[in-house]
Amino acid sequence: MSKKAVMAIAHGNFAIELLKSAEMIMGEQEDALALGLNPGEDVEALRNQAEKILLNYQQEGKDTIVLVDLLGGSPSNIGLYLLKKYEISLVTGMNMMMLIELFSSRDFEETDALLDKMITAGVAGIQKFIGNH
Amino acid sequence: MSKKAVMAIAHGNFAIELLKSAEMIMGEQEDALALGLNPGEDVEALRNQAEKILLNYQQEGKDTIVLVDLLGGSPSNIGLYLLKKYEISLVTGMNMMMLIELFSSRDFEETDALLDKMITAGVAGIQKFIGNH
Repeated sequence: MSKKAVMAIAHGNFAIELLKSAEMIMGEQEDALALGLNPGEDVEALRNQAEKILLNYQQEGKDTIVLVDLLGGSPSNIGLYLLKKYEISLVTGMNMMMLIELFSSRDFEETDALLDKMITAGVAGIQKFIGNH
Repeated sequence: MSKKAVMAIAHGNFAIELLKSAEMIMGEQEDALALGLNPGEDVEALRNQAEKILLNYQQEGKDTIVLVDLLGGSPSNIGLYLLKKYEISLVTGMNMMMLIELFSSRDFEETDALLDKMITAGVAGIQKFIGNH
């Protein structure tokens, strides 16, 4: 079973704080990093930083799952750039249940099955509740 | 068409930063607030704060949509408490596409249709991409 590493990238501090909040629930996580792009910041510098992190994970023999906020915009462009160049998986639309599933299951599932579980959990976690008044 | 207000609640700073990141993409939003619960903080104080915000929105005649990170845990307990007591809508599993849809459509859709659009967008935004190497 290969080790899985996580890199989350989003506009602003969303990915950074989602990861922190997930760790608040699940405990501190190894091989999990988050990056953010703030207005006026250099996209190329962020891409280089993401690529360095990925190469480091790869040298350590870890499968890398890149999470981004949405398809479109610089964070997902960085993800798509990495996807084209390296053997990674990319998941868009990250939310809390997806991260909880990822951290719960990544030591016990191969990457393909893990991705499916993450997507299922992320989708199933989206529910509406309307009061009866 | 009633005005819709948004209150996002999550563990840590996730909701606060997701809202900021969504505003980075969509522009600054009126009637949109986010709250966080950090370790050691008082859940009852947060619930009171959320209730005050909601009552204020209601006095202004606004339909309130409460977003939380996941079903389970204190943020969703606060959401469920408000759902039982007041006429609000509660949506779990918030992610970026859900917020973008919310802010794009809330002035043009009734609340029920808006909730369905948010859920559809949140779910559709969750996708995986696997490279061909």
